[in-house]
Amino acid sequence: MSARHGIVLFGHGARDPRWAEPFERLAHKLRGQCGPDTTVGLAFLELMSPDLPSAVAEQAAAGCTTVTVVPVFVGVGGHIRRDLPAVIDQCRIAHPGVDIQCAAPVGEDDTVLDALAAYCLRQIGAVGDGR
Amino acid sequence: MSARHGIVLFGHGARDPRWAEPFERLAHKLRGQCGPDTTVGLAFLELMSPDLPSAVAEQAAAGCTTVTVVPVFVGVGGHIRRDLPAVIDQCRIAHPGVDIQCAAPVGEDDTVLDALAAYCLRQIGAVGDGR
Repeated sequence: MSARHGIVLFGHGARDPRWAEPFERLAHKLRGQCGPDTTVGLAFLELMSPDLPSAVAEQAAAGCTTVTVVPVFVGVGGHIRRDLPAVIDQCRIAHPGVDIQCAAPVGEDDTVLDALAAYCLRQIGAVGDGR
Repeated sequence: MSARHGIVLFGHGARDPRWAEPFERLAHKLRGQCGPDTTVGLAFLELMSPDLPSAVAEQAAAGCTTVTVVPVFVGVGGHIRRDLPAVIDQCRIAHPGVDIQCAAPVGEDDTVLDALAAYCLRQIGAVGDGR
């Protein structure tokens, strides 16, 4: 049996259930691009479920031997710098047989910032009301 | 004199001043890609300054005849659906001579989601600890 890999897209969460829609679209895109040995899940810091320990536990139970957490945060403040490492440690203790890694937040990546810049440039003179 | 355009990158804001660094990098990229008639600024919903009315007022004072606000939010909840349109209306009333438009949030854009997906895929098996 080949090794199973997990990816957890980690977002802040919000009261409005529609808040998670871009995260669900992103997960859907990834599932279409990953091989059959990769499981893609979502997790939230607050106000939405599952939380990160639950999402990691689900991937561990599904047989993932590696789990990569990707913080889908543009701005990086206390939630990522302070809270997330503590939760990652908690997950590692709970699943000693799983290699749990945490990627840099998406806002740190130059190609993501390039895509954001290109999007902004396309909006000049070509936008609707955004509502 | 040619028309001046403004772009305001609108983010949530946070207590940690380092939170805004990706927004500053994004603004820097945009300034390098825009023509000399375009002014790029930042604005925040809370906890950081300037707020959106102040950022729009600054661009209006600098002679911008159009201002495009780009919500740099992946998830779209009450802040964007409810609070932002009210603030945009307030800006339009304050600056009737300026064409103020609000783009769709970055998380709604397919090319941005594609860049996020590509970033996530690059993290599988190739990440550090993220701290």
